[in-house]
Amino acid sequence: MIEGIKRVACVGSGLVGQGWAALFAVNGYEVVLQDLTEEILAEAVERTAHHINTLVNAGLAKGPDEAVARLRTTTSLEEALSDANFVIESVFESLEVICPLYEDMDRLTPADVVLASSTSGFMMSDIARDMKLHPERAIVAHPWNPVHLVPLVELSPGGKTTQGTVDFTYRIMEDIGRVPVVLKKEVLGFIANRLSAVLWREALDLVDQGVASVEEVDKAIRAGPGIRWAIMGPHLTYHLGGGKGGIEYIMRHIGVKKAK
Amino acid sequence: MIEGIKRVACVGSGLVGQGWAALFAVNGYEVVLQDLTEEILAEAVERTAHHINTLVNAGLAKGPDEAVARLRTTTSLEEALSDANFVIESVFESLEVICPLYEDMDRLTPADVVLASSTSGFMMSDIARDMKLHPERAIVAHPWNPVHLVPLVELSPGGKTTQGTVDFTYRIMEDIGRVPVVLKKEVLGFIANRLSAVLWREALDLVDQGVASVEEVDKAIRAGPGIRWAIMGPHLTYHLGGGKGGIEYIMRHIGVKKAK
Repeated sequence: MIEGIKRVACVGSGLVGQGWAALFAVNGYEVVLQDLTEEILAEAVERTAHHINTLVNAGLAKGPDEAVARLRTTTSLEEALSDANFVIESVFESLEVICPLYEDMDRLTPADVVLASSTSGFMMSDIARDMKLHPERAIVAHPWNPVHLVPLVELSPGGKTTQGTVDFTYRIMEDIGRVPVVLKKEVLGFIANRLSAVLWREALDLVDQGVASVEEVDKAIRAGPGIRWAIMGPHLTYHLGGGKGGIEYIMRHIGVKKAK
Repeated sequence: MIEGIKRVACVGSGLVGQGWAALFAVNGYEVVLQDLTEEILAEAVERTAHHINTLVNAGLAKGPDEAVARLRTTTSLEEALSDANFVIESVFESLEVICPLYEDMDRLTPADVVLASSTSGFMMSDIARDMKLHPERAIVAHPWNPVHLVPLVELSPGGKTTQGTVDFTYRIMEDIGRVPVVLKKEVLGFIANRLSAVLWREALDLVDQGVASVEEVDKAIRAGPGIRWAIMGPHLTYHLGGGKGGIEYIMRHIGVKKAK
């Protein structure tokens, strides 16, 4: 645990919020789950407990009962934020919902509390639009589903986000076992969703052109490049593919062909 | 082992041929490695033995000594083919080299011996151009590096390849623990290299646009989508991403945005 950070507020307790809650709870943090109704929260706690058990059963965490005991819930945003040292937001993806929420959270928390958004669809510069006090502590921390199992978290600072906010978020993400990647520039879809989208478009095109079925295309990815991409990214893959000549060989010999 | 198939000729004993040799040898087949010089073959046998040990150490095969004892070598194509029941070719990728080779192999083997090519760059309709006798038994069986570890094999029949050739190659690939995928139509790069190429292009573009460094893009793939792609392909990933609504939900809500 990071010194001085004891309590984390998970604003929004859906699929993503539950994943965050499980990760923070198994790593020793007190977690407050916040959402609109008690019914939603009851289900969220049940699923979070399930994720905690999954992590413990996989040998990735200890003490399921202690972790579950660290979960609290509230329907009040003010109560959720009142003693939180870090806020991770995972609400419905709509600027009409998110912008006023950040304006409220900006008002309801001390200036040094970092506000992180799980958004996959928006950039922090847009989300922080109406933050009047301290937009410099707001940052995107976009996780991948299932949040408690896939380690990638993309950190995308907005136009006003400070380096201190980036550094703190990086540290707390590593502290809960995540693999944070920092974007140098805001871009729609961040890194991983953009890369996934181009792969999907080509996959759909192969099916469309009658080259192979949906199932066969998926099977090809799973049994081939997927295995390599789980170990290394595309650049390193091609660099190794070039043998002794590395990526320079690849670029010289097949780079141009591939670009067509 | 498939009934009646005892001996496999690996024509070309480089990186790819060594992988094939290891796979066939650990699965009980007699293997003849063929190449231009004794020096090349001596190194090939050494590396094949190394791959065999890797497979045994990983618990993927038994009896390293027996498997190594099943390897033979020859610099004579005629000798390599004389008693082979299946031929897997992995020579230098050039039609000037490959086309005459298939013409020779067509002449030197009985009509019922399947000739499979590891090529990643050519289509069987081009490779089989000069086969005068039995082009119907020639097929592409494109593996992924490292051949002895990554299970995908893409089967791409040429214009004259019969269904019997496809079926036999599918069976022998499954018999040596591979995951074969059959293309319905010849296309440059087959399935997996086309998908890899689009991912790489987008990865290079992200670096080019200053969004993230080479290392960060690779890290993002490795820690995020790569893990999912090793378990399932892009279609299933998006189908699950749609929640209860499945891929239809995704298509309706973000499909159009992603297509831009």
